[in-house]
Amino acid sequence: MSDLAALKNEIIEKFGTPCSVIDLDVVDRNITRAQNLCDKAGVANRPHIKTHKSPLLAQMQIKAGAQGITCQKLGEAEVMADAGITDILIATNLLGAARSGSLANLQRRLPLKVCSDNVVSLSAYATCAQQANRVIDVVIECDTGQKRAGVETPNEAIKLIRRIHNDPWLQFAGLLYYPSLDGWYDVQVFHDKMLSELKKIGIAINIVSTGGTPNFAHIGKLKGATEHRAGTCIFNDMMMVQNGFANLDDCAFHVFTSIVSRAGENRGILDAGSKTLTSDTGGLQGFGRIIEHPCANIKKFSEEHGFLDFTDCIKKPNIGDILRVIPNHVCVAVNMVDQLVAVRGEKIIDVVPVKARGKLV
Amino acid sequence: MSDLAALKNEIIEKFGTPCSVIDLDVVDRNITRAQNLCDKAGVANRPHIKTHKSPLLAQMQIKAGAQGITCQKLGEAEVMADAGITDILIATNLLGAARSGSLANLQRRLPLKVCSDNVVSLSAYATCAQQANRVIDVVIECDTGQKRAGVETPNEAIKLIRRIHNDPWLQFAGLLYYPSLDGWYDVQVFHDKMLSELKKIGIAINIVSTGGTPNFAHIGKLKGATEHRAGTCIFNDMMMVQNGFANLDDCAFHVFTSIVSRAGENRGILDAGSKTLTSDTGGLQGFGRIIEHPCANIKKFSEEHGFLDFTDCIKKPNIGDILRVIPNHVCVAVNMVDQLVAVRGEKIIDVVPVKARGKLV
Repeated sequence: MSDLAALKNEIIEKFGTPCSVIDLDVVDRNITRAQNLCDKAGVANRPHIKTHKSPLLAQMQIKAGAQGITCQKLGEAEVMADAGITDILIATNLLGAARSGSLANLQRRLPLKVCSDNVVSLSAYATCAQQANRVIDVVIECDTGQKRAGVETPNEAIKLIRRIHNDPWLQFAGLLYYPSLDGWYDVQVFHDKMLSELKKIGIAINIVSTGGTPNFAHIGKLKGATEHRAGTCIFNDMMMVQNGFANLDDCAFHVFTSIVSRAGENRGILDAGSKTLTSDTGGLQGFGRIIEHPCANIKKFSEEHGFLDFTDCIKKPNIGDILRVIPNHVCVAVNMVDQLVAVRGEKIIDVVPVKARGKLV
Repeated sequence: MSDLAALKNEIIEKFGTPCSVIDLDVVDRNITRAQNLCDKAGVANRPHIKTHKSPLLAQMQIKAGAQGITCQKLGEAEVMADAGITDILIATNLLGAARSGSLANLQRRLPLKVCSDNVVSLSAYATCAQQANRVIDVVIECDTGQKRAGVETPNEAIKLIRRIHNDPWLQFAGLLYYPSLDGWYDVQVFHDKMLSELKKIGIAINIVSTGGTPNFAHIGKLKGATEHRAGTCIFNDMMMVQNGFANLDDCAFHVFTSIVSRAGENRGILDAGSKTLTSDTGGLQGFGRIIEHPCANIKKFSEEHGFLDFTDCIKKPNIGDILRVIPNHVCVAVNMVDQLVAVRGEKIIDVVPVKARGKLV
C-alpha cells in the first residue's frame, strides 16, 4: 500500500469522511513565502486570520516574522487575544460588537486597532474607548474602485480623520486599502492626495495597509505602504491557482471524502456537500478540484452530497474510494468545521481546533 | 418605541449582530401544520432534523405527534440519541461513519434504520451490525428521476433487497423516495413494480417513505406510502415561499443584521455575509429577503459583509439600522451558528444550541 493510501485509511478509520485536513509542511512553506514577499518589499506582514481562525497557526505566522494579525470579527480577536497575541487590527466597521459591549471589554484588555468608514461607527468606537478607559486606534478604510466597504473619496476620508482628531477617545492610526489587481494606479492617486491633505492639516499617518493574497503580485508597489494583510495564502485554494498565485502543490487544505454512490455510468456522489465545502464557487466553474480525478466535475451540491459528472473522465472512481478535494474558496470551507486534522506529508500529526469559528460578533 | 424596535435593541445589546433568531410561536405553528398534514394523509411524520440540528426542537416535533426523526449524518443521530430519541432513520449511505466505527457504536446503543443504494454500503453495514451484535434495519433509496442518490430501477433495488435478505446481520426495512414535484406518477409506477416483485419473492415491506417540504402539496398521493420526512417546514425560507408552501409570516428564522456602511446613494453593507447566510442561493435571485426593505437586493457577499443595492428602494436604511433577513435556504444558514436566539413574538425566551452542527461523519 502506498503512503497516501495508508494515510487515507488512517483518516477514515480515525475520523471518518468527510474530513478536513491541512498539510503542515505546505503550511510552513506558505507562511515563509508570504513573509519573504513582505520582507523583500519592505512592508510589515499582518496576515488575515479569517482564513484559518486558529491561534496555533497565527502564532506560527508571528514566529515567522509577522508583526501582528488582521481579524474580520471581534470574536476572532477575542480568541487571538486569549492566545496571547497583542497586535490586532480588526478590519471592519464593528457596530454589533460595539453595541453589545464586547468591543469595550476587549479594548479594556489590550489596545486594539479598529476600522471605520463612517461617523456612526466612529461614535460607537469613542463610546467603547471611554467605557474601556483607553483611547482606541482607528484606521480609515478607503475604497478605490472595488465597491467593497470604504469611503470613496479622499475628501470623505479627511472628514472622518478630522472627526477622529477632535475626539479625545479616538486616535488616527492610518489607512486601509484593498486594490483591485489592475487598480494600483488608482490607489496611488488616492493615497498621494491623502498625504498632501494630511500634511496641510498636520496629521501624521502610521499604518498604510494593502490587502489580499492575489495582491502579493504587486506588493510594495504602493509608494508609502507600510504593511500587507493577506489571508488565503496560508492554505491557498482553486481561486489562488486560477489567479496564478499558487500551484496545486501549494494548496495545504484538502477535504478527504468518500464516493458513496455510483448511480449510472457517468454519475457519482461524494459525502461532502454544501455543509462541508460550501456553495461559494469563488466565481469558478464547479465546486472544487478532485486531485485524483481532475476531469471529474463537482457540478452540484445538496447539503451532505457532492454530485459528480464523469463524462470527461477516462478512469472513473468506485464506491468506497477516498478522494481529496481542493475547494474553490478555502476561507469559507475551514469555517464549516470545528477542527482540522493536521498531517505532515502522509503522517497524521495533530488536530487543530478552528477556535475562532462560530463567534457571534 | 415599538415592541419590534425594543426587541432589536435587546438583541444587539445582549448578543450583537449578526444574530440568528427563531420565533417559537411560528415554530409551534409550523410543527402543528406539518403534523396535521401527515395525520390527514394517513402517513406517519418523520421530520428531517438536518434543518434545525437541535434535540429540543426534535422533541417538540415528537411531542406534536412525529413517530421518529430523519437524520442525514451519523453525528446528528448520535446527538439525538443522547437526547433520548430512539426511532432514528439516517437517510444516506454511511461509508465514513461505518469505517470509523461510529456507526457500530451507535447501533450497539439503539437499533438504527440506515439507508443504502449499493452493495458496498450494505457490506459495511453488515460488518457494523456484527460489531454491534445487533441486526441493522436497512431502507433502500430509490431515484425516480431527480438524479440524487438512489438506485434508478426496480431491478437494482430488488438485487439489493435480496442481498439484505440473505445476510443474517441485515434486515430489509423499506423504501425511500424523493419525488420531484411533477414526478408522482413515476414514483407510483416504480413502487407498484417493487410491490409486485417483492410479493413474488415473499419479502414484506414496512416503511415506504416520501420526502421534502414542497412535497406536502402531494402528501398521501403515493398509494402505499407509510411516512413522510420533511425538514425545512419547521422554519421555512424564501425557497419555500417561492414554492408556494409558506408565506412570509411562516418563516420562523431571521438573521438580525446591522447596516454598517453606506457608501454611495444606492449602496449599503450588512454585517452578515457568506459566513452567516451562506452562498447557497437556493436557485433564487440574490441571497435572501430583507423584511424591512423588500426592494433592497442582497446582490453579493464577502465573508462577513452583504452588499446591498438600493436602486429599487424609495426608502433607504441608515447606518446602524438593524434589519431582519430571511435566507433563501434556511438549513444551511442554521448550520453556520452554534446557537439560535429563541423569541416569542417580541420577547427573548431562550438560547437554543444547534447541538448536532459540526459533526465529522
